Amino acid sequence: MQELKHFFNKGYLDYRPCLTIDCAIFGYHDGELQLLLVKNKILTKWCLPGGFVKKDESLDQAATRITAERTDIENLFLKQFKTFGDPGRNDPRGAFDPEKLFEIAQVRFDEDNWLKGETASVGFYAITDIINAKPNADFLSSECQWFPVDKLPPLGFDHDEMAREALFTMRMHLYHFPIGKNFLQQKFTLKEIRRFYEVMLGKQLNASNFPNKLIALGLIAKLDEKRSIGAHRSPTYYKFDDETYELALKEGLVLA
Amino acid sequence: MQELKHFFNKGYLDYRPCLTIDCAIFGYHDGELQLLLVKNKILTKWCLPGGFVKKDESLDQAATRITAERTDIENLFLKQFKTFGDPGRNDPRGAFDPEKLFEIAQVRFDEDNWLKGETASVGFYAITDIINAKPNADFLSSECQWFPVDKLPPLGFDHDEMAREALFTMRMHLYHFPIGKNFLQQKFTLKEIRRFYEVMLGKQLNASNFPNKLIALGLIAKLDEKRSIGAHRSPTYYKFDDETYELALKEGLVLA
Repeated sequence: MQELKHFFNKGYLDYRPCLTIDCAIFGYHDGELQLLLVKNKILTKWCLPGGFVKKDESLDQAATRITAERTDIENLFLKQFKTFGDPGRNDPRGAFDPEKLFEIAQVRFDEDNWLKGETASVGFYAITDIINAKPNADFLSSECQWFPVDKLPPLGFDHDEMAREALFTMRMHLYHFPIGKNFLQQKFTLKEIRRFYEVMLGKQLNASNFPNKLIALGLIAKLDEKRSIGAHRSPTYYKFDDETYELALKEGLVLA
Repeated sequence: MQELKHFFNKGYLDYRPCLTIDCAIFGYHDGELQLLLVKNKILTKWCLPGGFVKKDESLDQAATRITAERTDIENLFLKQFKTFGDPGRNDPRGAFDPEKLFEIAQVRFDEDNWLKGETASVGFYAITDIINAKPNADFLSSECQWFPVDKLPPLGFDHDEMAREALFTMRMHLYHFPIGKNFLQQKFTLKEIRRFYEVMLGKQLNASNFPNKLIALGLIAKLDEKRSIGAHRSPTYYKFDDETYELALKEGLVLA
């Protein structure tokens, strides 16, 4: 309560007034892709978790702080997807409850307040395994939970568009940055890695072409070991090549 | 002169003080990829063209205005590549000439001025045919010219990183958005389109795999016509499929 009041009244001392971060935190588990949403105490709709940028923070540091606060995971894989800054985008009229705001922080939005100005919001996405994350509501949010990406509720402000753009960019990046180390077992079959990518991409992949590309890039390598699951079905195990994987994370690749 | 003075002293009336746009305008012509740079009157280094965002503009509108002013082309293909907002990034100390600033606009940077605050800059890239563009210096820039992307001079502020990120993202997008309509003739050979992509991507492509992907996606279609360039060499002409091309521009594709 005290924290909220301080934020609404004196937040400009710690934060840059016109710059925010919003984070699309994707969670994968057991064949399903979900998105972490928060419900603000004064707003009536679900939103992407976000916040203002502190005066001494880089954008990456702010996104790392915000995602860590919401998931309890430090150093999530983060990438910018797009910045949103059209005039009026953060206008709360019609989307928030002024009585609630006054009750919580003794602030009226028609008064002069540092939160009234236009903000540009830099969108970052992150990907985590849902079982590693502990969703936390912060002082401004009353709820924080996972939703399947294909069954999102209507979001507040311009966050519908943000969620769409985040998903589009994250999926495009799957063709240019390796993924899988934190989601698959140390050794896996070609079918398992293909299934994982199918969920992440939201589409079917060719059963032999796709794994062949991963092999041709040197991202995965065959092990001298097979899984025994029946007389005529003993798929070979594969593992990631650490060196190629780390280099591709830094420099990018073309999964084509 | 009057315009400059007004901008430095009263710019906050028209512009959002903490939000800028910087544009990496790539120019292709005759097998070479170049980048448009400007040299500011008070700064000592080349920079990407950019500017502040007007209070009533969307980010796309601001980028469209800034690229049109510099190239004389309306409605260039524009996409965001990344936003830069780390503290101190727009600090002009060491990079600009205070005497020049005073001479031009009677402004001293140690005085209180709307330009002194931190800015976040949203990076957009554009691609044009160099012969269609007429590089224009604006009231703040004394020069505006093309440089080959592999021979850029050292840039001011954080624009070295911006140029690198713009090139990286533009090249990644080549695998997800069609390109070529404004750069190739209406009918072209597979070798011509491959060569165009090789220059844009900055790398060699497989002579048969690459065009086969364009054909498999339905982006290009065979014409019933060949170019006659010798007894045993008559390559077939191809053209873009307009419908597939336009749809892919909107929805993206995977050139893989």
